[in-house]
Amino acid sequence: MIKVRPAILCGGSGERLWPLSRQSKPKPFHALLSERTIFEDTLLRCRGAGEGVSFADPLIVAGEAIETPVRRGLASAGIGAAAAVFEPVGRNTAPAAALAALLAQKADGSEALVLLVSSDHHIAPVEKFRETVAAAAPLATDGKIVVFGILPTRPETGYGYIRKGAPVGEGFAVAAFEEKPDAAKAAAYLEAGDRFWNAGIFLFRADTLLAELGRYEPEVLNAVQAALGADNRIDADAFALSPSIPLDIAVMERTKHAAVMPARFHWSDVGTWSSLADALDADAQGNVLSGDVIALETAGSYLRGEDVTVTAIGVENLVVVATRDAVFLAPRDRAHEVKRILAAAKDRKRDDLL
Amino acid sequence: MIKVRPAILCGGSGERLWPLSRQSKPKPFHALLSERTIFEDTLLRCRGAGEGVSFADPLIVAGEAIETPVRRGLASAGIGAAAAVFEPVGRNTAPAAALAALLAQKADGSEALVLLVSSDHHIAPVEKFRETVAAAAPLATDGKIVVFGILPTRPETGYGYIRKGAPVGEGFAVAAFEEKPDAAKAAAYLEAGDRFWNAGIFLFRADTLLAELGRYEPEVLNAVQAALGADNRIDADAFALSPSIPLDIAVMERTKHAAVMPARFHWSDVGTWSSLADALDADAQGNVLSGDVIALETAGSYLRGEDVTVTAIGVENLVVVATRDAVFLAPRDRAHEVKRILAAAKDRKRDDLL
Repeated sequence: MIKVRPAILCGGSGERLWPLSRQSKPKPFHALLSERTIFEDTLLRCRGAGEGVSFADPLIVAGEAIETPVRRGLASAGIGAAAAVFEPVGRNTAPAAALAALLAQKADGSEALVLLVSSDHHIAPVEKFRETVAAAAPLATDGKIVVFGILPTRPETGYGYIRKGAPVGEGFAVAAFEEKPDAAKAAAYLEAGDRFWNAGIFLFRADTLLAELGRYEPEVLNAVQAALGADNRIDADAFALSPSIPLDIAVMERTKHAAVMPARFHWSDVGTWSSLADALDADAQGNVLSGDVIALETAGSYLRGEDVTVTAIGVENLVVVATRDAVFLAPRDRAHEVKRILAAAKDRKRDDLL
Repeated sequence: MIKVRPAILCGGSGERLWPLSRQSKPKPFHALLSERTIFEDTLLRCRGAGEGVSFADPLIVAGEAIETPVRRGLASAGIGAAAAVFEPVGRNTAPAAALAALLAQKADGSEALVLLVSSDHHIAPVEKFRETVAAAAPLATDGKIVVFGILPTRPETGYGYIRKGAPVGEGFAVAAFEEKPDAAKAAAYLEAGDRFWNAGIFLFRADTLLAELGRYEPEVLNAVQAALGADNRIDADAFALSPSIPLDIAVMERTKHAAVMPARFHWSDVGTWSSLADALDADAQGNVLSGDVIALETAGSYLRGEDVTVTAIGVENLVVVATRDAVFLAPRDRAHEVKRILAAAKDRKRDDLL
């Protein structure tokens, strides 16, 4: 049984799930896919043992602004974190991964095995998730930084891709990390069959990650080491000295130790209202109705009322999301453009809406 | 200068303007067409003098459930009612008209000239309204019950029609009252050019109205006379004995003294969200935006946020009305079907939504 230390990153704001997702209560802290919040589902997925993996209590790396929902989520899931650190300022995922590695070493020693996961992804079933972790563990133990790869199911232009190289253990070496493609490239990638989506899930030994970070982005490592106190508080000034940089760019695109493990589970980043609707079961009319909804002669739509009753007659292929203070509606295939609404709100100094 | 006693009926619930219009605060008590509520606009239209008419302080006949918004509206408009009576139970317009006539007689004597108007219509401009009242006054003084007729502008199937007879004064005798027609009949009526819409606005001498009501529906008159106390309180048991019947059926369709006066003003009953949108000026994209709205690439739509921000991208020809606790959306040409939502809410025991 391999002991794995989960480290859960609570970072992104989930702006494209506005008006539900807000700065003070972003996407992972809403019950979008089940009766539990995505954060709670994530916590519960990374606990217990099975399929050759035993999860230790999680580490949490989160933004300072969301400490309250994080602590509530832990309590609600009945999980005690091994450690929770709150970044006074966001510096993207490379410093967050370094924090996770340092915290894991405190708990488990230098060669602690860290599973770095996002707090806001949809993953199922949990057995297949554990299987994938177990398959990746020998590679990580052997000094690889393993990224989980999702087999593409459509020519998606919104994700980075990983081109696989030669087989290594149950996975593959990484031939290349590839940026978000245009539509033609995305179609070619899908056709070629040798790419994975980069889901931002990593398994590595803490010492491996820190060594590679020290090699390629020493400023990040130095800042994080200086900022992390013995009490796990983060010194704001020291932390702010870290470059803001994703782990992919800081380490994964440069290291010679990258490997990719094909995911055996279903995955969605639940990035937009339409992808969320796609991830849920529709009724006979093709509707996904969530919360308090009365819909007559309505088809192909996602309607969600959060403390508000949403009612509709005769609409099709719409996304409608209503909260106490804001309503958003758009055709289903344009729901991702919600960021333009947020930009307009900022222009109008409507910070209350963000 | 003819002295006219306005009597304002606050009855209908305005269900088709849900979710804004509610049982506890129906349509006339919302600012739908101007900065003031429709009730306040109605009060202000029926005050002062001009065009040969002098309005006395109004009489109010309203349902018990809306006493609070009525009193607030009077205060807000700065108008003291000559008398305000509140019906413990709704019995349609014939008993309400009788109450108005009895109250007018208390104030002005037996032959008081009563202008019976609804509290929830859009009428403009006020000068043309007064002109029409002045033109009708000699007929009413002469013992006619004058109904104001609106010249049809479309083959409307939602209103009753009045066929005009021989000219009488500046108006016409009534050849017939005609029920809401089907589409073919409505088109024929429009073509014929001899019909008016029945707008439910009446001018009459109090004694004329009471005599005709006593002739054709004595039970109504008896119940109302028994119910109305010296202090203008209405005895619930006595009032409940009145048949529930509209003035049109109780008197107008039967009396030999009906006349119709063509209205010189613009009129709308603001019955539905789409008729409301039609009554307001649209922007260059054909949108009518009311309250707090952010709309991008949106056309031909009515969007209203009441204490809620409504945001939309890329929608067309929709009605969207949002309040703190409910949102309604429908294609503009189906917005009148909102009553089906209310029926569904009743089925679900959701009285909080009514």
